[in-house]
Amino acid sequence: MSELRRDPTTLEWVIIADERAMRPHELVRKEADQPSADFHDRCPFCPGHEHMTPPEVLTQSLPGSDRPWDIRVVPNRYPALRPDAPFEEGGDDFFSRFGGTGAHEVVIDTPIHNREMGRMDDREVEGVLQVYRQRYNALKTDPHVKLIIIFKNKGSVAGTSLPHPHSQIVATPVEPPLARRRYNVARTYYAGCGRCLYCDILEKERSAGRRVLMETERFLAFHPFASRWPFETWIMPKQHRSSFGDASPEELEELAPVLGSVLKDLQEKLGDPHYNFVIHSAPTKNSVKPYYQWHLQIVPRLTTAAGFEIGSGMHINTALPEETAAFIRDG
Amino acid sequence: MSELRRDPTTLEWVIIADERAMRPHELVRKEADQPSADFHDRCPFCPGHEHMTPPEVLTQSLPGSDRPWDIRVVPNRYPALRPDAPFEEGGDDFFSRFGGTGAHEVVIDTPIHNREMGRMDDREVEGVLQVYRQRYNALKTDPHVKLIIIFKNKGSVAGTSLPHPHSQIVATPVEPPLARRRYNVARTYYAGCGRCLYCDILEKERSAGRRVLMETERFLAFHPFASRWPFETWIMPKQHRSSFGDASPEELEELAPVLGSVLKDLQEKLGDPHYNFVIHSAPTKNSVKPYYQWHLQIVPRLTTAAGFEIGSGMHINTALPEETAAFIRDG
Repeated sequence: MSELRRDPTTLEWVIIADERAMRPHELVRKEADQPSADFHDRCPFCPGHEHMTPPEVLTQSLPGSDRPWDIRVVPNRYPALRPDAPFEEGGDDFFSRFGGTGAHEVVIDTPIHNREMGRMDDREVEGVLQVYRQRYNALKTDPHVKLIIIFKNKGSVAGTSLPHPHSQIVATPVEPPLARRRYNVARTYYAGCGRCLYCDILEKERSAGRRVLMETERFLAFHPFASRWPFETWIMPKQHRSSFGDASPEELEELAPVLGSVLKDLQEKLGDPHYNFVIHSAPTKNSVKPYYQWHLQIVPRLTTAAGFEIGSGMHINTALPEETAAFIRDG
Repeated sequence: MSELRRDPTTLEWVIIADERAMRPHELVRKEADQPSADFHDRCPFCPGHEHMTPPEVLTQSLPGSDRPWDIRVVPNRYPALRPDAPFEEGGDDFFSRFGGTGAHEVVIDTPIHNREMGRMDDREVEGVLQVYRQRYNALKTDPHVKLIIIFKNKGSVAGTSLPHPHSQIVATPVEPPLARRRYNVARTYYAGCGRCLYCDILEKERSAGRRVLMETERFLAFHPFASRWPFETWIMPKQHRSSFGDASPEELEELAPVLGSVLKDLQEKLGDPHYNFVIHSAPTKNSVKPYYQWHLQIVPRLTTAAGFEIGSGMHINTALPEETAAFIRDG
């Protein structure tokens, strides 16, 4: 089973994913990538191959669809964390361990092997977002779960080998370092001035305007002032809600075309780059707090984090967010 | 000029490298990589092409060599930070900026276009290490410099496009987040028990033994307990010194074959993967403190940080350090 290990130099936890672990010889670099499940006849996420995944947690059909399912959620076959792992600490001060409790699910976004989210219609994107929320709210009932992260890896450069469009949901038994840092900063800000930091950022970016991509009734999409990567994009709801699980159905209906538009622009204006997106929420136990705001972050993988970033935790961004936003908005 | 921008959600600085900045259209993804300086007749780091780089900061010849230079240090042509940038803050609480003061140098490790560090003899590796130390000690005299990071990116997956072996040195005017975090943890540990955390880790890893690759009179090489990446390797000096600038010539002479051996093992046992290495030191102003220990970290880029890591700051390592160390040690 997986375990968490605490790095004594940072006091931060690392997931050592024994179960998805590769034996050392499997990591030896090959001259070219292994052929992956490029064809739907070998793809574990295609309809008819349901036996190739663990039994489903949930299936969803879109209105008017006559398919057996349009969206399907399954436990990850090689989970980084799992609900039945022991919730217990071990080791000593130096070699501190924690059971790999939590969850790791795969959302199969569509039955169609090559229908990237950037090519879906709004109704399909909305279906996926509603399923995310359903699973978020189901997973948060586990008392061991501290944080739920929903994310998508599109393409090999972004860390996936399976081309069939899918997303992932990980529920962790500890607060991961970056999530804790951001949450603490927001809490301190609120203690000082009584306002939500993220709502204030939204207002500042909106009035600055130079980094804004688009605005709708309920959402603002922009390239943040201190972007870590070129073309990093945030989509932020205007209505204050600390957790994605509290987003309303109407909000998700409106989020779908905004997300779809951002992804289509990546495809059309940036040559269809590999990308990650992440939905950030407050820790689950604090989900009604006034000082955090859920938001969606999209990171196209156009440049590579290198030795400087690994060593320092500081990013060098080789593009100006004011220029990249203008390129997308006006280009 | 470059500037630092503070992310209001983390209060951490990001370098927006205007000068090395790519215009947005240059980041559009191409079908294949651009042809890079693959041939030495176009390589800016090959002898005879010295005019293709800014004027040198230092050149070094190895004993008995009759070449014009064996190691050459130049300012980065597109520096992330530079000594003559204004040292001043600007902006407001949300959009806080800082001048891109500091330094960004390139160490051309060898005059030979394809002589990777993993193929060098000990004398050549030692020459590079001694030059690192010279530049470290020169750069730390700048009163604006807070931290000096020495690193190498080998291969495109590790973030470099120039194949001619080279390293980089960045001197920053702020303490980068990961460096500050590790330094604070070590300081707190020292305040609690009066010992250096890193010296204690060295002793713990040494006596556990399972993750150790090799031990010499002055160094221990091991895969740390909470490794973030498969085959992540640390080389730690046994003699307590908080800063790489204080390493003795004898230590660097002994470090050379240890580093060479680790890099050769990557080549021979892991299929010559792309990799980064980083030399960690205490902040420069605290370079004589008893609670930090310089060390060298090597990260082969065998797996890809994906949406989970970007969103949470938490790593999923898909290999057990006990198994990877045994694979290298005994394999």
